[in-house]
Amino acid sequence: MTELELEHYLHKHIPLLRAIGMWIVSIDGNTVVLGAPLAPNINHRDTVFSGKASVVTILSAYCLLHLRLTALEQSSYVVIQRNSMDYLAPIVGDFTARSALTPGQDWGQFMAMLTRKGVARISGDAILDYAGADAGRLTGEFVAFGKNRL
Amino acid sequence: MTELELEHYLHKHIPLLRAIGMWIVSIDGNTVVLGAPLAPNINHRDTVFSGKASVVTILSAYCLLHLRLTALEQSSYVVIQRNSMDYLAPIVGDFTARSALTPGQDWGQFMAMLTRKGVARISGDAILDYAGADAGRLTGEFVAFGKNRL
Repeated sequence: MTELELEHYLHKHIPLLRAIGMWIVSIDGNTVVLGAPLAPNINHRDTVFSGKASVVTILSAYCLLHLRLTALEQSSYVVIQRNSMDYLAPIVGDFTARSALTPGQDWGQFMAMLTRKGVARISGDAILDYAGADAGRLTGEFVAFGKNRL
Repeated sequence: MTELELEHYLHKHIPLLRAIGMWIVSIDGNTVVLGAPLAPNINHRDTVFSGKASVVTILSAYCLLHLRLTALEQSSYVVIQRNSMDYLAPIVGDFTARSALTPGQDWGQFMAMLTRKGVARISGDAILDYAGADAGRLTGEFVAFGKNRL
């Protein structure tokens, strides 16, 4: 799946992203970087509203899992089960969210479980970056359902 | 602050809320209930996108603190420092988020600290309700800054 295909997929299925003005910075097998502007969605302090930062970080982690499964031609879908998020610094301009598997997660074991049981859990992280510094940190726990559960 | 005043305030300062189509169900000193529609912000499974659910729950907890401080004519502002969110069930229609102070939180102590130090921490919870059942649960840790920190 190319960046353009992912962008088309996301905007089609999650219309909220248009309102946010989110874009895809880069994707590969190990990380997804999404970008979002300060405007037009600012909060009462002229900083990025925490809810919007939360949306973009959750999505970058979700996209990584979606892309990895799509690359393997897995008929599956991914849902988030839990997340925790730390807001480390105010964001007063365009920002990015960069995702990766949570350290220690075993992709091979996850795939084996998904194939065998039709359901498997995995964790993804995302870091919010503003002006070259970490502005937030998310850990998300996701569940993937395989084709026999669709 | 009336429901109409709060709605006006939120839509003015957080334009993202217009895109979500959020509305205020009820407010009082102990709880804030916000409502949001399934459409137009659905996800790839025709359920509510987790990021949107996250936005509405964070906001209901934030609004409760904002309203309580405003009622006391406190010149202060509130930011979120951390949150955790559990997604308990898919949401396939209009939903609400109902906030309250986290059990065990001492509002009097929080206000005393805010007055004395100009900064104080407090926790708020919010429950997502869809069709009469809990569909999600948030705990948020907030920091309020008093007028001497504005």
